[in-house]
Amino acid sequence: MKIIIALGGNALIKKGEKETYSNLLKNIKKTCSSIIPFIKNNKVVITHGSGPQIGNLLLQNEIARKKVPEMPLDVLNAESEGLIGYLLQEQLSNEIHKRKMHKNVVTLLTEVLVSKNDPAFKNPTKFIGPFYTKKQAIKLKNKFIIKKDSNRGYRRVVASPKPIKIIEGSLIKELVNSGHIVIAAGGGGIPVASKNKRLTGVKCVIDKDLASSCLAKEIKADLLLILTDVDKVYLNYGKKNQKGLSRLNLRDAKKYLKEGHFAAGSMKPKIEASIDFVEHGGKKVIISGINSVEKALKGNNRTIIKKT
Amino acid sequence: MKIIIALGGNALIKKGEKETYSNLLKNIKKTCSSIIPFIKNNKVVITHGSGPQIGNLLLQNEIARKKVPEMPLDVLNAESEGLIGYLLQEQLSNEIHKRKMHKNVVTLLTEVLVSKNDPAFKNPTKFIGPFYTKKQAIKLKNKFIIKKDSNRGYRRVVASPKPIKIIEGSLIKELVNSGHIVIAAGGGGIPVASKNKRLTGVKCVIDKDLASSCLAKEIKADLLLILTDVDKVYLNYGKKNQKGLSRLNLRDAKKYLKEGHFAAGSMKPKIEASIDFVEHGGKKVIISGINSVEKALKGNNRTIIKKT
Repeated sequence: MKIIIALGGNALIKKGEKETYSNLLKNIKKTCSSIIPFIKNNKVVITHGSGPQIGNLLLQNEIARKKVPEMPLDVLNAESEGLIGYLLQEQLSNEIHKRKMHKNVVTLLTEVLVSKNDPAFKNPTKFIGPFYTKKQAIKLKNKFIIKKDSNRGYRRVVASPKPIKIIEGSLIKELVNSGHIVIAAGGGGIPVASKNKRLTGVKCVIDKDLASSCLAKEIKADLLLILTDVDKVYLNYGKKNQKGLSRLNLRDAKKYLKEGHFAAGSMKPKIEASIDFVEHGGKKVIISGINSVEKALKGNNRTIIKKT
Repeated sequence: MKIIIALGGNALIKKGEKETYSNLLKNIKKTCSSIIPFIKNNKVVITHGSGPQIGNLLLQNEIARKKVPEMPLDVLNAESEGLIGYLLQEQLSNEIHKRKMHKNVVTLLTEVLVSKNDPAFKNPTKFIGPFYTKKQAIKLKNKFIIKKDSNRGYRRVVASPKPIKIIEGSLIKELVNSGHIVIAAGGGGIPVASKNKRLTGVKCVIDKDLASSCLAKEIKADLLLILTDVDKVYLNYGKKNQKGLSRLNLRDAKKYLKEGHFAAGSMKPKIEASIDFVEHGGKKVIISGINSVEKALKGNNRTIIKKT
């Protein structure tokens, strides 16, 4: 079976944890050990988020800007693909060799095509980077678009356009079909757009679940496995009447999405990615927790999303 | 023909230039346009240095360390592979498509095995990162090894051990043999060492020319093309009696190296890499300038290094 495993942020760093090298390494080691059961008999591509990491790179760029020229968002995404991809590939290889399996792990820098006419550019909604006070926010208004992030302060927002095509899609397909484990489209991929027949980077971020479904379609994956910090999809999540769904069909998924059951930037893009994949020939999406995922999939702690 | 093109630092940023995104992009565009003539009829792997970029990442980490946990050198190398690899792959693809050629460009995060027993760890000599005053240097002595860098100030030194094996070597070979252009071993590769049968990162840097010859041997390249900021190899370089060499055999290369003709961290590792490659079955090394390299190779502005 050909699987895309989309790792959520908690695969790298747990909520509230300091993002030190040793914490990253500890979590990534654990994550790699959890997904090992899928590696042996399947063709696997791994994608991952990078929100906190990009946030840190942004903050470093901002604080050091008088000494080191700041790099734009697309370059920071490339840096985060390096950072996370390396640690994932290193630790996954270690887990593979420990079990005397023979598989290569390879990380591909991945560019993802977006359209400059995407409506997201007219109404940026994706919060990134550090929080600012109101005073700082006013000062930064010429440089960034700043919005209030609930009660936590002011923050930069950027567009999160729809991924159209994975530039390295055919190569990823070739590699995974040859039996290699491929880490790709980290952080949703490096956003690029076409201008005068050349691709150049765009200052925005792409949702990693939507990039994963885009890639899943291109490599003709059998399964999109989205691993996150809840064990399954819930209706009325966090409320008294919350209800876990162990199965979900396309029609219901669309209905619940429309009814606003799924939080923006959290479960919503996962459901949108699932709908996109299943609607375009994908057989199955599974959404589950990252911890003891093998056990979860054997039991009922997951949501299976299929066409019917 | 199978070629490794090793790009020197001036392929990315010129001496004295500010390392802004626009300067990087401008230089990389030009570099890609220069190497296009080699792309069409050959199998090509591109390697590159990343000294100034790692220096900048180090500086950002240091300045922002109270807000963002610092990452170790191996992770910064991975970040720089992301940063530079992305821009190289993007611009090289643009130049390829402009000429209606059909080649994929792919960047692989590359780990390189070093030995923890390498003598370099006992006597670190590679200067990296920002300059410090004597006062700052004394303060940092518990954290880093600091040495005086000629008259320019104090600087951190790290070990530069010998590359033993390119971890992704077989994959790079597979990809380049299939006709893809591969960008790999950026900045000399991410240094890793084996401990209890697991690979983990090492806080050091690997010379990119030595990593390139290591890779050239593994993929059985026909030619190692080292592009730098001089047009050829010189004896008594920079002196009144300097003498350019258009050809160099293995015996003379070793002799001149021993005589101290080649500067450490500059021409010396290039000659060492050349000797290493030619001595282990490599047919030919060419050292030349990055500008108008095609013309240079047709004329006499290059040094060809062969066994005899």
